[in-house]
Amino acid sequence: MALVIKLSGRVFEDEELVYRYVEILKTIKEKICIVTGGGEIARRYINAARRGGASHTFQDLLGIYASRLNALLLISLLDDAYPEVPKSLEEVLRAWRHSRVVVTGGLQPGQSTATVAALVAEAVRASVLLNAANIDAVYTDDPRKNPAARRIAELKYGDLEKILNSSALPGGYELLDLWSLSILKRNCITTYIFDKNKPEYIAQVLRGENPGSRVTC
Amino acid sequence: MALVIKLSGRVFEDEELVYRYVEILKTIKEKICIVTGGGEIARRYINAARRGGASHTFQDLLGIYASRLNALLLISLLDDAYPEVPKSLEEVLRAWRHSRVVVTGGLQPGQSTATVAALVAEAVRASVLLNAANIDAVYTDDPRKNPAARRIAELKYGDLEKILNSSALPGGYELLDLWSLSILKRNCITTYIFDKNKPEYIAQVLRGENPGSRVTC
Amino acid sequence: MALVIKLSGRVFEDEELVYRYVEILKTIKEKICIVTGGGEIARRYINAARRGGASHTFQDLLGIYASRLNALLLISLLDDAYPEVPKSLEEVLRAWRHSRVVVTGGLQPGQSTATVAALVAEAVRASVLLNAANIDAVYTDDPRKNPAARRIAELKYGDLEKILNSSALPGGYELLDLWSLSILKRNCITTYIFDKNKPEYIAQVLRGENPGSRVTC
Amino acid sequence: MALVIKLSGRVFEDEELVYRYVEILKTIKEKICIVTGGGEIARRYINAARRGGASHTFQDLLGIYASRLNALLLISLLDDAYPEVPKSLEEVLRAWRHSRVVVTGGLQPGQSTATVAALVAEAVRASVLLNAANIDAVYTDDPRKNPAARRIAELKYGDLEKILNSSALPGGYELLDLWSLSILKRNCITTYIFDKNKPEYIAQVLRGENPGSRVTC
Amino acid sequence: MALVIKLSGRVFEDEELVYRYVEILKTIKEKICIVTGGGEIARRYINAARRGGASHTFQDLLGIYASRLNALLLISLLDDAYPEVPKSLEEVLRAWRHSRVVVTGGLQPGQSTATVAALVAEAVRASVLLNAANIDAVYTDDPRKNPAARRIAELKYGDLEKILNSSALPGGYELLDLWSLSILKRNCITTYIFDKNKPEYIAQVLRGENPGSRVTC
Amino acid sequence: MALVIKLSGRVFEDEELVYRYVEILKTIKEKICIVTGGGEIARRYINAARRGGASHTFQDLLGIYASRLNALLLISLLDDAYPEVPKSLEEVLRAWRHSRVVVTGGLQPGQSTATVAALVAEAVRASVLLNAANIDAVYTDDPRKNPAARRIAELKYGDLEKILNSSALPGGYELLDLWSLSILKRNCITTYIFDKNKPEYIAQVLRGENPGSRVTC
Repeated sequence: MALVIKLSGRVFEDEELVYRYVEILKTIKEKICIVTGGGEIARRYINAARRGGASHTFQDLLGIYASRLNALLLISLLDDAYPEVPKSLEEVLRAWRHSRVVVTGGLQPGQSTATVAALVAEAVRASVLLNAANIDAVYTDDPRKNPAARRIAELKYGDLEKILNSSALPGGYELLDLWSLSILKRNCITTYIFDKNKPEYIAQVLRGENPGSRVTC
Repeated sequence: MALVIKLSGRVFEDEELVYRYVEILKTIKEKICIVTGGGEIARRYINAARRGGASHTFQDLLGIYASRLNALLLISLLDDAYPEVPKSLEEVLRAWRHSRVVVTGGLQPGQSTATVAALVAEAVRASVLLNAANIDAVYTDDPRKNPAARRIAELKYGDLEKILNSSALPGGYELLDLWSLSILKRNCITTYIFDKNKPEYIAQVLRGENPGSRVTC
Repeated sequence: MALVIKLSGRVFEDEELVYRYVEILKTIKEKICIVTGGGEIARRYINAARRGGASHTFQDLLGIYASRLNALLLISLLDDAYPEVPKSLEEVLRAWRHSRVVVTGGLQPGQSTATVAALVAEAVRASVLLNAANIDAVYTDDPRKNPAARRIAELKYGDLEKILNSSALPGGYELLDLWSLSILKRNCITTYIFDKNKPEYIAQVLRGENPGSRVTC
Repeated sequence: MALVIKLSGRVFEDEELVYRYVEILKTIKEKICIVTGGGEIARRYINAARRGGASHTFQDLLGIYASRLNALLLISLLDDAYPEVPKSLEEVLRAWRHSRVVVTGGLQPGQSTATVAALVAEAVRASVLLNAANIDAVYTDDPRKNPAARRIAELKYGDLEKILNSSALPGGYELLDLWSLSILKRNCITTYIFDKNKPEYIAQVLRGENPGSRVTC
Repeated sequence: MALVIKLSGRVFEDEELVYRYVEILKTIKEKICIVTGGGEIARRYINAARRGGASHTFQDLLGIYASRLNALLLISLLDDAYPEVPKSLEEVLRAWRHSRVVVTGGLQPGQSTATVAALVAEAVRASVLLNAANIDAVYTDDPRKNPAARRIAELKYGDLEKILNSSALPGGYELLDLWSLSILKRNCITTYIFDKNKPEYIAQVLRGENPGSRVTC
Repeated sequence: MALVIKLSGRVFEDEELVYRYVEILKTIKEKICIVTGGGEIARRYINAARRGGASHTFQDLLGIYASRLNALLLISLLDDAYPEVPKSLEEVLRAWRHSRVVVTGGLQPGQSTATVAALVAEAVRASVLLNAANIDAVYTDDPRKNPAARRIAELKYGDLEKILNSSALPGGYELLDLWSLSILKRNCITTYIFDKNKPEYIAQVLRGENPGSRVTC
């Protein structure tokens, strides 16, 4: 079984959290591809570029470079990982052929790392995507703004699409964007969304539990 | 001024049409990047792969390879073009730095060549995208199925988004998909959509005319 | 034992034939490198380029791109194949190191895929080359033009050289050209030439039979 | 005349300072290659890797990735710069051939960005290296620890070597290490060392002034 | 006008001869691509590999590496040359786009540097190939063995083909092999063959003289 | 256990010596990375470039190319080696992941192959570096000039540093330069220095003996 794990870039703002992820990841026996976000550093450089008048393409490339820094840190701490950060989907496939563990960051301007995770899951024919997110589950609305927002443990991709369409952009982006959804759906990949601050949830998902939300096709 | 021209892959099913495009392209003085679709050959190989059980990733890669064949044919016929087909947005930027004319095909699984054209337009900071499409303009509905469909000469990206959302997938795909729309919109690039069988429309657009539909932000 | 199998590009004009090859190839236990020709698509694009005044270099590159499309289709259908189409002999060697099955197309302008197959056979130190050709065996002359042409089951490279030298260019090209012959000869590789429409002949050759012609040094 | 400018990674901790550098850099007419350090982000990731048991090689690679993030930010803000961050000295030479402005970060584990700057200066045959450093000039000792340390405006490479040899490692490292010194010396390149917080010093050096220290062979 | 100049690897066994070639090459105003052979070093390493049981592929690669050493020496001495040795015909085309002077060595196992020169001439659409050879002209037979061998100043490709076919392999190889002949012929490129010890012959050829043999289509 | 073996480029001036190394290397069971120097050929090309006015960068690149020729010869003679010569430390790591035996030459201008060996040892986390040198052990002074020079069997990196600092440049360079020392020291790698003319010393070192000098941290 092939697994894809998406780690929010925010994980890398807390060194101890990174080490805890490394411990969990070392216990996994399956083939895994980990996709890292860019986090705070990405945001800072993108802002500096935008304020200075840089194109969207370069803004996105800066986010990609930041996510690769996170990917390389993880590689350096995992003994088994492919020693390079792949720079395209073809390089992911090549690395995947040689290593049980592959870690990648962003791949191309104009796409979120959620979409990278979906594309990678499709490429390695993963049946499950674990999304360690900045939110602990899918809600009917943004729970930080709307106290009446209801948590949803089980949902279909169609349901999630509706929620993302109705909500404001930034909140939706943190989970999965529409493009990533369409890729996950066409491959019928099950996605688990859970709180990035609980690395132990990865083990729970592998045991069949659902610590956050599960999205199925 | 930088121009991006998207040529439907179907252009390449008619050799004479290709030569007519070459004649027009040779008269353009501006810096241009041409993005070619995969056309019939792409469809044939994607079908063969899908029927044989290949992953979506490989299906898309076959489409990309077919689009690169079209790109290379154009390169071989234009004296001025960068001599290679770029394989990533970074390679497009590098080629763009060196050549007045760059021709590229698809770049990554999971995205249409319309999206490639939008990403390229963003990267080279083009203000205009010319889309030589399989349809002669934007309509309120698919004109091949709905005789009451009305042709729209001038529209906003928001209008096009609504039309694409309401219509069936394949028809929408032929014009621009939602992802490409969002990129064009965030850069406020003007898109011209016109009949791919009329290469002379490129010259008309450059003279300020609108032979099909014009989408603005 | 390492095997090299050359598949005429024409195989890829018939989807069912491709699937039948895939079935046979999946049963082979040996390390194999498959070299695909460009077929009809190659011919079409080369003609379009030549008529439009493109250089021989670009004409040949178009043939190479077409052959890579065929190679990628095969890769997408074989579970075990190296996930990329090598673009040079060094890349073939690298892929060969990692995978039991490697599929490649053309490598360089100015050489036939028959020559690629011979160079690959030399590089991987194969003892046998299987050539699924557009003709069912070697004949003393072109059997389509000369009804008195005699089929030859067993011959030496020297004999084949004489036949190719005396016959018109196109017919000879379909089998093996002189350059590929000299490479096969200097490595004393045994070549089997047989009808591309009979994938089962591959199994026959592996059992020690000779369904077409066998060329030895 | 070719110039090499080394920017301390700390410059990139202050967005406004970056913009001020961009303004100055845009006024330079000469061919320039800018080498960026990794700064705070490099230090943070290197520490995280070391504490987690990563090899020196990966620690250094993390520093290189951080310096490339800084290089890319600068590229995104300069209209004229080569659009990619070179990853080897050969790539620097290639970019240099095509662009008036090249920006690079670290190149290889085991070497400081000061050494990169020296190697680049040698490769592009620059006669001058401008080092925007974390200190405002060369001193006889570390001025933060020894109040009797004396500032030196003009010195020879031999003098600097002695100072670096006698001082503790970190202070020396901030200026130039011994390896970079030996490269600068063998090419007889003049180095200016000045306070990184004063971008205007670049203009002063170009006018023939010496706002910090000047090291000659 | 584009020129291709093939320099025998033996040129590089005599440092002074190399400098004399550099002087002549610096006076040429045309776009030129120089192809260097491997010479004595190539022969020595190929022999060592063969005696040690290496494959033909590696023997040829060693010859290619040696020829690239010669190419790089020339690049280092010419101020204007593209700073890298291209490793494929596509890289030659890319370098050619950027530089007036490109220097390359061998490209692929299984082909002579004469063939590389012919392929390069075809790719850059050169009308003339200058071959600074180990012999001062074409002869009817090997003049070192047959004192009756007659020197031929003007000949057709067909004539040269017959001479090469009738003579022993090594002598033919030193001039042009059959594969390179067929490429030169199909592009109707005029080839000058002259003594490699006379760099001044290059200037003579450019003035319209024929100091050795001229082969035309 | 991972081993790094540095072979003086002079080994490659004696074919029989190369074959004897190949025999020894084939008996090693550990993972090994071999780093080859450039030897006589490097010296010859560097001199030719320097006399002709080439930059230090190109002089060093010529040395690197020569060392890669030696590396490739070794690869061609070892059945198990990774089939390419890595061109950067990242490529060494990638090759190392796939092969028990990796052979590399120089990597970057401005560094000795001794430094490459140290960087490689650090990257693959080797505990031992075997240095087959042009001298049979470390001496208190250059034994060819000072007959009173005393041979030292066991020493610390600090001791070697002092000897290298006090001796003339060329003699020191032949063993290990200061940069390589600092890398070996920070990783606490044990270095064996012994006479390059005795390949059997490699086996002795692996049995725990010390045929020349042993440097420890």
